[in-house]
Amino acid sequence: MYKMRLFTPGPTPVPESVLLTTAQPVKHHRHREFREIFAEHNRLLGYLFQTEQPVLTLTASGTGAMEAAVLHAMRRGAKALYVEAGKFGQRWGEILCAYGLEAVPLSVPWGEAPDEAQLEAALCAHPDVRAVFLTHSETSTGTWMDVRALSRVVRQRAPDALVVVDGITAVGALELYMDSWDLDIVITASQKGIMAPPGLAYIALSERAWKQARESDLPRYYFDLFAALAAYERGDTPWTPAVSLIAGVREALRRIAEEGLEQVWDRHARLARALRAGLLAMGLKLASRRPSNATTAVWLPEGMGWESLNEALKRRGITVAEGQGPWKGRVFRISHLGYYDPLDMVAVVAALEDALRELGYPVEPGVGVAETQRVLLQVDMETGS
Amino acid sequence: MYKMRLFTPGPTPVPESVLLTTAQPVKHHRHREFREIFAEHNRLLGYLFQTEQPVLTLTASGTGAMEAAVLHAMRRGAKALYVEAGKFGQRWGEILCAYGLEAVPLSVPWGEAPDEAQLEAALCAHPDVRAVFLTHSETSTGTWMDVRALSRVVRQRAPDALVVVDGITAVGALELYMDSWDLDIVITASQKGIMAPPGLAYIALSERAWKQARESDLPRYYFDLFAALAAYERGDTPWTPAVSLIAGVREALRRIAEEGLEQVWDRHARLARALRAGLLAMGLKLASRRPSNATTAVWLPEGMGWESLNEALKRRGITVAEGQGPWKGRVFRISHLGYYDPLDMVAVVAALEDALRELGYPVEPGVGVAETQRVLLQVDMETGS
Repeated sequence: MYKMRLFTPGPTPVPESVLLTTAQPVKHHRHREFREIFAEHNRLLGYLFQTEQPVLTLTASGTGAMEAAVLHAMRRGAKALYVEAGKFGQRWGEILCAYGLEAVPLSVPWGEAPDEAQLEAALCAHPDVRAVFLTHSETSTGTWMDVRALSRVVRQRAPDALVVVDGITAVGALELYMDSWDLDIVITASQKGIMAPPGLAYIALSERAWKQARESDLPRYYFDLFAALAAYERGDTPWTPAVSLIAGVREALRRIAEEGLEQVWDRHARLARALRAGLLAMGLKLASRRPSNATTAVWLPEGMGWESLNEALKRRGITVAEGQGPWKGRVFRISHLGYYDPLDMVAVVAALEDALRELGYPVEPGVGVAETQRVLLQVDMETGS
Repeated sequence: MYKMRLFTPGPTPVPESVLLTTAQPVKHHRHREFREIFAEHNRLLGYLFQTEQPVLTLTASGTGAMEAAVLHAMRRGAKALYVEAGKFGQRWGEILCAYGLEAVPLSVPWGEAPDEAQLEAALCAHPDVRAVFLTHSETSTGTWMDVRALSRVVRQRAPDALVVVDGITAVGALELYMDSWDLDIVITASQKGIMAPPGLAYIALSERAWKQARESDLPRYYFDLFAALAAYERGDTPWTPAVSLIAGVREALRRIAEEGLEQVWDRHARLARALRAGLLAMGLKLASRRPSNATTAVWLPEGMGWESLNEALKRRGITVAEGQGPWKGRVFRISHLGYYDPLDMVAVVAALEDALRELGYPVEPGVGVAETQRVLLQVDMETGS
């Protein structure tokens, strides 16, 4: 018997207390019983985003919040710059294109992220962009982008352009201060760092973004953020929201607040570092040149198919994610985003050692877990915790 | 101590077995463990809609499915006819308008529904409409529309026009055979007749509707039903869906299939009839001239405010819905949509008798519940059950 263990970058595992909260009797969204839950949920989201702005709730997948961001940041005939370095960066381009907008890609190879000079050059060629669309953690490649530094470049080179951040697999995992980093739109979803089931997406806009949104003329109804804002101000949502998931998110956010957001970020950094060390000790190779603390992409060993590795891990109760786009069949991805602790990293490395050995890949039993454990304890010693 | 009892037209009460199913560990939507659940969920949705067409799953509120219907039924420059007889009929008009489409209202007073002659006249004046948007159960007024008869009128008078049905508070409550009634688009949501928490919306298109949708040129991304259809055919959804709610809906649909869909419709008819009889026996007056078996709207007694009635009912654990739009402060609405049995009707009438008496409205104790009970038993005798 193996327990089921989810190591995918969304859905991610959900704490039992959150699951049980979602099973409580459904409340009506326009009555007091729900408004109390929603008000606390909203306060805690402000803490999570590190913003004084309202964080609006959409009943949708994260992609719905991406579309809402485009619909409010852009207007007909406007031009956008977006970073294209993986499947989720490409999605910005697809949404912009679906609305007939001019979308200029800043392309870098998969597994890499643009640096400040590349963004400067792109803005020099296109100083008239209305918004710059970034991906804080590009999940398809397990790659992190320095949103803070890139945002500064936008402020210097295109002062009126909005900085729009896909934080879907980053918020709650990677350091992010929406207000003090001067980000204009940040989005995320419930089934990632928030540690709740999928079904909710979140979006916050800076004052600059709200101002620009008022000029937008793109058609929308369900994703109209002015309707969402008006409802937010009276304590609810314009359409019936996923009330049971909102109750679950409140419970999950209470846990994050109790641990402390900076401690949560540190935990993600520590787990990612320990996992990567274990993988390298087994002779595996990381696919990203700037690994994200949310997800690690690993090259499949030569000659090993994704399906056989997946089946071998499944036999040990482990679910990881396959590669996407051009990396399909070339990488597998292990997530450490959300509800994970050090012992989960030891467990996944142990399962991987075993599965790889079954498939004929040479690993000395214990070499991965020992290195993972060493790094976990070393980080402990360094931080004195 | 009073138990909490929800009598609102969405969210509606959710069976305990469904709630507990939603609390099971989250599964990854692209893995076998979820695909099995999704396949059965999809088969059962076909039974619920009485269609051979795919019923597509959107992670959204019902309004999202309304927008998806507009985006695929219409195209730029096209004209639509919609029935405007309450808040949800108006919403069709609002969505059409948000996309710059010509939207012709067929308006009837709140609490009424158009008959075949009225629709014929409207189509005679506007034979060139691309689609006719109906509301099977107009929840704001508790009014039922004869979708089957109206659909026949469309087929005769405007053979190429699509019949689009908002079945959000009707599917699973009112008789509906999508295929044999030749309906083109039917939508619903999870938190209504389906008896699950809010967060999912459903939409099915006839062959005629799919054909017309291929010509549509309205911008869309998250609500692109061609992306949803392609994913459906390989067993999943284009974006991460609310997997825990889908598991809950499967459990709820199993219950509906076990009871039998026609028995479910009959139950709704019987409960609605018994409730209305109890209300009339108390001297209350129904606000709709064609009461829906999903929700009953009742005029507030003269001089009685919504807030005081609401508070008096809350003290007895009962949540009902207030009026909307022009009926705000004039009606209250009791829902019997989804997970209700005969004893729930007796209970809500008993609470209402008690609350009304507290507020000084003259009711003989027992007069309402006795009449409700008489009708429940009479229907039993008539049907021989």
